[in-house]
Amino acid sequence: MRRLALFGLAALAGCATAPASAPQAIAPATAEAPPVPPTMQWLYGSGESAASSIQAYHALRDYVIAAARARPRDSVVLAEGSSLDHPDFVPCGDRPLAVVLDADETAVQNLGFEYDDARHPGRAYDQERWNRWEQTGGRALTPMPGAVTALRAIRAAGVAVIFNSNRLARFADANAAALNGIGLGPVRHGETLWLQGDTPGGSAKDPRRALISQRYCVIAMVGDQLGDFSDLFNARGLSVTARREAAASGPFARLWGNGWFILSNPVYGPSIRGGPDDVFPSDKRWSDPQGDH
Amino acid sequence: MRRLALFGLAALAGCATAPASAPQAIAPATAEAPPVPPTMQWLYGSGESAASSIQAYHALRDYVIAAARARPRDSVVLAEGSSLDHPDFVPCGDRPLAVVLDADETAVQNLGFEYDDARHPGRAYDQERWNRWEQTGGRALTPMPGAVTALRAIRAAGVAVIFNSNRLARFADANAAALNGIGLGPVRHGETLWLQGDTPGGSAKDPRRALISQRYCVIAMVGDQLGDFSDLFNARGLSVTARREAAASGPFARLWGNGWFILSNPVYGPSIRGGPDDVFPSDKRWSDPQGDH
Repeated sequence: MRRLALFGLAALAGCATAPASAPQAIAPATAEAPPVPPTMQWLYGSGESAASSIQAYHALRDYVIAAARARPRDSVVLAEGSSLDHPDFVPCGDRPLAVVLDADETAVQNLGFEYDDARHPGRAYDQERWNRWEQTGGRALTPMPGAVTALRAIRAAGVAVIFNSNRLARFADANAAALNGIGLGPVRHGETLWLQGDTPGGSAKDPRRALISQRYCVIAMVGDQLGDFSDLFNARGLSVTARREAAASGPFARLWGNGWFILSNPVYGPSIRGGPDDVFPSDKRWSDPQGDH
Repeated sequence: MRRLALFGLAALAGCATAPASAPQAIAPATAEAPPVPPTMQWLYGSGESAASSIQAYHALRDYVIAAARARPRDSVVLAEGSSLDHPDFVPCGDRPLAVVLDADETAVQNLGFEYDDARHPGRAYDQERWNRWEQTGGRALTPMPGAVTALRAIRAAGVAVIFNSNRLARFADANAAALNGIGLGPVRHGETLWLQGDTPGGSAKDPRRALISQRYCVIAMVGDQLGDFSDLFNARGLSVTARREAAASGPFARLWGNGWFILSNPVYGPSIRGGPDDVFPSDKRWSDPQGDH
């Protein structure tokens, strides 16, 4: 296995609006590490992202403890037949209360895998490499800041903690051990840990949410991607702009921090999409009055 | 002024762990726009970041309204003599209550400036260009999702809304007009808008916080960078790791979402720092058992 023997600190612009550093090619003769992409510097290295995670988990804990006392009538899981314009929520009934969380970059930080990725800029994502990570990387994980404290308080309040992750059911033992090993447990596959392959639909999480909702009233959900809340946000043909509007306005806007809790992850996922016309509204354009420099 | 006449959608990898796209050189003969950096795709284009912003502003609003009813004994501004290990907070006294917010990528999205930056990958930050943006870009701004609603509710609860921004006092009129023009006002320079140059210390915000604290009890603060809360986090020689630890543990951890409210900004700022050894703890390293591919 070829390793880089020495890691030096890459010189990086840290201030003001510095564009993303271009990844450097790894020259076999030297041992200088490629620069860490800004997305990873922010998510894994900054006090700002740690603060953001703690803030989200504080909000989750406070909300769940209050909701546990005043049983809500409805869960926060969308019922079948819902649309982005007209969501309906699965009623609570008298089922026991639960919180459902995604795992990756929601409850855990995949430090080892992302460190390896940072060493190989420009390399394509490889599902088999991720599979090897699921199987062997359990010791190179750490919880997202604030998660352990929040989940402990939530369990102490009598609310079940259930993970709904797109890690593979094929590696259920390793995945359960990984979560349990970093203080997020106890989790048990098929009870409090649901994985890709447990239901039809592949990476779509709605079927697993429906399954969980048969046994529990889900009063809060936690994720880093909109698909952690509803597959409606991953509909084919939903433009970047329409997707953002769906999340930020209408019936879903009131849910953020209020039953649906999101962790910021700029490193990967369906949030990382779009050209200039998708990302920047056409009525908010500006160019330097002094021209291009 | 040279403009790109046509913007096409750049093909971008949107899924899984895709490394940051390398900025492409702009070929004068073609009109294809450079790809938008992942940091900007996330912050300005994604539903996830909009959700995160709404969530933070929900938390701010709920917290401030509750705190306004039960006047706290202490403010959330650090008193002189505080250290990262031993913070003290300025007592409230009987001064009127206030919330203090940063402006850029906290209350406003600098869409026009960042759009222009995305068109010029690899270009260095230019303070004079930013100054021209402050003076001319007021119509290419938009509020951060959730900010207008939250500030309206906070003012209605009788709590003052004050901005503490490193935009320049030299352009106070333009900066006040920009904030007022997008629904975040009313702000008035020297009363509810404090800018760089209003006090000694340059971009350090503690002196302005001290000034504000003479007139108000600051019960909540909002920012996208740790320096929006205390200059202690910008101390020379404070390593990336120590800075993250200071924010994420000890006496400051409990403040996030609980008096100190942070918006996620992976596009620029002191959060975007560090080489592999800063960002990835040495005990969480992993490499693919099947070697480098």
